[in-house]
Amino acid sequence: MIRISLDVMGGDFGPEVVIPGAAKALERHPEVTFLLFGQQARCEPILNKYPKLKERSVLHDCEIAVGMDEKPSQALRRGRYVSSMWRSIEAVKTGQADVVVSAGNTGALMAMAKFCLRTMANVERPAIAAIWPTLNGESIVLDVGATIGADAQQLLDFALMGGAMARALFEVERPMVGLLNVGVEEIKGQEEVKEAGRLIREAGLDTMDYYGFVEGDDLGKGTVDVVVTEGFTGNIALKTAEGTARQIAEYLRAAMSRTLMAKIGYILAKGAFDRLREKMDPRKVNGGVFLGLNGIVIKSHGGTDAEGFAAAIDVGYDMARNGLTQKIENDLKKYHARHPSSAGPEAA
Amino acid sequence: MIRISLDVMGGDFGPEVVIPGAAKALERHPEVTFLLFGQQARCEPILNKYPKLKERSVLHDCEIAVGMDEKPSQALRRGRYVSSMWRSIEAVKTGQADVVVSAGNTGALMAMAKFCLRTMANVERPAIAAIWPTLNGESIVLDVGATIGADAQQLLDFALMGGAMARALFEVERPMVGLLNVGVEEIKGQEEVKEAGRLIREAGLDTMDYYGFVEGDDLGKGTVDVVVTEGFTGNIALKTAEGTARQIAEYLRAAMSRTLMAKIGYILAKGAFDRLREKMDPRKVNGGVFLGLNGIVIKSHGGTDAEGFAAAIDVGYDMARNGLTQKIENDLKKYHARHPSSAGPEAA
Repeated sequence: MIRISLDVMGGDFGPEVVIPGAAKALERHPEVTFLLFGQQARCEPILNKYPKLKERSVLHDCEIAVGMDEKPSQALRRGRYVSSMWRSIEAVKTGQADVVVSAGNTGALMAMAKFCLRTMANVERPAIAAIWPTLNGESIVLDVGATIGADAQQLLDFALMGGAMARALFEVERPMVGLLNVGVEEIKGQEEVKEAGRLIREAGLDTMDYYGFVEGDDLGKGTVDVVVTEGFTGNIALKTAEGTARQIAEYLRAAMSRTLMAKIGYILAKGAFDRLREKMDPRKVNGGVFLGLNGIVIKSHGGTDAEGFAAAIDVGYDMARNGLTQKIENDLKKYHARHPSSAGPEAA
Repeated sequence: MIRISLDVMGGDFGPEVVIPGAAKALERHPEVTFLLFGQQARCEPILNKYPKLKERSVLHDCEIAVGMDEKPSQALRRGRYVSSMWRSIEAVKTGQADVVVSAGNTGALMAMAKFCLRTMANVERPAIAAIWPTLNGESIVLDVGATIGADAQQLLDFALMGGAMARALFEVERPMVGLLNVGVEEIKGQEEVKEAGRLIREAGLDTMDYYGFVEGDDLGKGTVDVVVTEGFTGNIALKTAEGTARQIAEYLRAAMSRTLMAKIGYILAKGAFDRLREKMDPRKVNGGVFLGLNGIVIKSHGGTDAEGFAAAIDVGYDMARNGLTQKIENDLKKYHARHPSSAGPEAA
């Protein structure tokens, strides 16, 4: 049985989206139970509309809600120990929940998660992993914005953590891992990326296969299962892809409404367009996964709807059920046992 | 009258694409003349098929062609002074041509262009600018891969050069310039990007308006006329967008051929689809512009066809006609006259 903790106040809409989202997720995973953290007066009337969810939930009243624009330091000062965000994370720390899902602001969520759950031994910095739709299915891309910059050892950590996540999510034994770079020739790219490639190659990891460098256009192709990069580039790649998808959807909409023929064609092909829309639907792949912490934290888009929030819960459910944290810990331990010199600061 | 120099051997197909491409461009700009550099035996039979182009061209025989996989150092060693690539660039240096267009390999072309034309006074590093299709029309994005990394002063140079290019290309007086970053709040992002923002703001430039930070999804929206970033991130953003566009085109193709209804709908809406395809056609925006050199160099995609190469010539034509090099020189001079401490190495 998976126990899911929810920051009900997180996101642009709070309980209006989180509670219906949880109800949707419960339909797909009826054995799940929920710990809900939020302002009781706002949450209860909504929860009452979903009797099945109410039956499998415990609501904890939290007066403080972290704002979407609050800076991490401010959120920590105001919301530590008391906010719905903090307490939903804490439930994972105390073992009451297996995973926490929040649509709250990314900076505050990461700051609180780091403070509360702490970074894993041997991991210098956590990362945020995105699930990226590709022509081959899905890939994992990390870091998409937890921190700016990464040295070679940190990129190797990201590769290990992303590999473990791929094994949990895609159920493949040895996921294929690539490093994002500007050219496939060994000569190109940043020093850290080249050095990371050397480290991964030399590590001889049996938990993944190392593909080498990949480029921006390999993301959509799905050339590898896991694409590793530092947070600045990863965040810009992710948002560029989202922006391009929206741009093309806009072109398509405009093209299909220009002439009568196009409109009739659109109506006839509506089923196909619906399938396409579903393929491109950002809600379907909602859920950034925080990796490298002692517990599973899922970040949902702040502006998502109930369907999107349910998708983020699905990701959390999969991660918890497949023992993501344990897998990462094991992989890191295995690597660091063989490479004692490269241990992170906590093990040093 | 604009005189255009062409590296006829460049690209995956060489004269088979470059010469028909030039013929297409000539139809649009009948006053243009061409200097063609390539292996006479291969070029002449193709040129003979285009009598109008032949009449307005001079073909210079060059035995050596730079390979698409040659490393820059190797290309320089083998091809300096003698290759079609070198000699086509040299024609700009000697004043015989106003602009050079090559579909040859980017690294070799940049190395030769730097060696032959030299970097402008006050510019530390050249950049490659891409013309990016947006929901608002087009934007300029630079650097998309000339060099990895950039400090704040170099980012400011890119802003100045991109702004000058926007004035040449879009004929706006004060283009809006933004810095690519991972968040719009001043607190986020790389130190260099933050520092560049401060420098640009303090410079009080009258050749552009500074918007502030933009994110990856602002690229497709066309939030600003010029997006400034360093080459690693810019290259990955560009290739990610290209990959995403191809991915969605693939989804669309698959969706439209799944059912009979969808196929009929597709046929009825064919005009609309053709418009969409044209919007998304990478050939329409073919042509990276090298900025910061003493002369205009246009890089066409290596794998493009005649239509795409003609588009790259169009870009070169516009840049030459609107005095791009002069505009950049003037803007840089103006800035450095007011900020003498921040002059580049050549002026130091």
